Amino acid sequence: MKSLNIVIAGCGNVAGHFAERFTQHGHQLVQVYHPDNIKASAFAARFKTKCVCNMNEIFAAADVYLIAVKDQAIANIANQLKTEHGIVMHTSGSVEAKVLIKHERYAVFYPLQTFTAGIETSEQEFPLLIECGQKQDESLLTELAASIGLKPFLMNSKQRAEVHLAAVFACNFVNHFIAIAFDLMQSKNYPTNLLMPLIKESIHKLSYISPQQAQTGPAVRHDDLVIEKHIHMLQDDIALKNLYQLITKHIQENQQKD
Amino acid sequence: MKSLNIVIAGCGNVAGHFAERFTQHGHQLVQVYHPDNIKASAFAARFKTKCVCNMNEIFAAADVYLIAVKDQAIANIANQLKTEHGIVMHTSGSVEAKVLIKHERYAVFYPLQTFTAGIETSEQEFPLLIECGQKQDESLLTELAASIGLKPFLMNSKQRAEVHLAAVFACNFVNHFIAIAFDLMQSKNYPTNLLMPLIKESIHKLSYISPQQAQTGPAVRHDDLVIEKHIHMLQDDIALKNLYQLITKHIQENQQKD
Repeated sequence: MKSLNIVIAGCGNVAGHFAERFTQHGHQLVQVYHPDNIKASAFAARFKTKCVCNMNEIFAAADVYLIAVKDQAIANIANQLKTEHGIVMHTSGSVEAKVLIKHERYAVFYPLQTFTAGIETSEQEFPLLIECGQKQDESLLTELAASIGLKPFLMNSKQRAEVHLAAVFACNFVNHFIAIAFDLMQSKNYPTNLLMPLIKESIHKLSYISPQQAQTGPAVRHDDLVIEKHIHMLQDDIALKNLYQLITKHIQENQQKD
Repeated sequence: MKSLNIVIAGCGNVAGHFAERFTQHGHQLVQVYHPDNIKASAFAARFKTKCVCNMNEIFAAADVYLIAVKDQAIANIANQLKTEHGIVMHTSGSVEAKVLIKHERYAVFYPLQTFTAGIETSEQEFPLLIECGQKQDESLLTELAASIGLKPFLMNSKQRAEVHLAAVFACNFVNHFIAIAFDLMQSKNYPTNLLMPLIKESIHKLSYISPQQAQTGPAVRHDDLVIEKHIHMLQDDIALKNLYQLITKHIQENQQKD
């Protein structure tokens, strides 16, 4: 595709990830906006572009404006932004596209991925969920996503919210249960990395079988002796004990449904 | 180390995994026992060894007897087993070593890993938790574990149970939350593999930062608007809605503890 002129608002992990992909794949990052001059300058230096801290100085003739900021800040930036004809888009899974509606051309460009400062993502290709205010922009943004090595999917705000909810279970909640497991190990002074081969293998399995088929453990075996022993071991942490019991019940009820 | 003569009781995934490691690393699998002749024969053919279906025919002069069967069946097999001087050991995370106490030399040989029929484990080296009835057997079993490419750790039954509890959170519960996420995707006809890059990246991160540091999502951000939207989306599934609320609360409370 032809090279696009892109302005990014935001200096966080999502902004940085997209800046890297855009510049690596021949697009022009013409400007970055952030109200904090130190952050904006560091980001601009990293990607060899210009920065502005005042929204009035944002270049009005870019092809695309990527607003990659906290959910709560999107509407405010969108409302202040003045553009000639570019597409204004945000990157949030849970914010509706219509917060950008004051712009003639608006879109959502939501990466179904988790980003951390300083860690390059191991999964180079991941899904990008696209929603466009105007149908005629769909092909341009689909092309843009593909041009930076991502897998574009067209989804409206309702669909994106449904995928985002699933992602909370698959990513945020999964991470929390690993955190609990690590806390349990640390409380007894066992090295947490003992659990890593098990965790990695659990995920590796999913290339071959569904998680429904892969379910193992005392809950799915209805191993009441072990379950009672575990509940007893958790008796000093009522919140965790309740969580253990509720999840065990949920595993067993879902098994019965199958 | 010198080659050991080993008898395995059981034909499941754990038995198969150990049979493969023992034979690949120069030990002699002298016999496999299983009451079902078809299963025992197939297993024996796979590992080019003999099988017996009657416990009285088990070779009495082996160095090691590995009882790799369901938790509930361990005591019964151990009680019927007659050996001259070999070490009798089971492979369970949650069964105490003392169920083997009728044998002069007994042990636990617990792999901290998950096994699935037909899937070769991606993590070739994983921890093996060892407990011995007699202290003088510790060096032999530690050597045996290392000789088959595993990382031996000496742990008593109480310690093993504590690690096993952590493993339930890190493996069984994590898998269940991925299953829930897949169910949510499937209920809306979205391909579940859209979530895989996100899941793999969540695990990849843990090579760099702790799960406590890696926590993201609406709960840890205290994003009440998104949390309420999600609860509303789950209103037709009361069990899942309760689970979402309880985990969100648990994430927030644990954050406050830090």
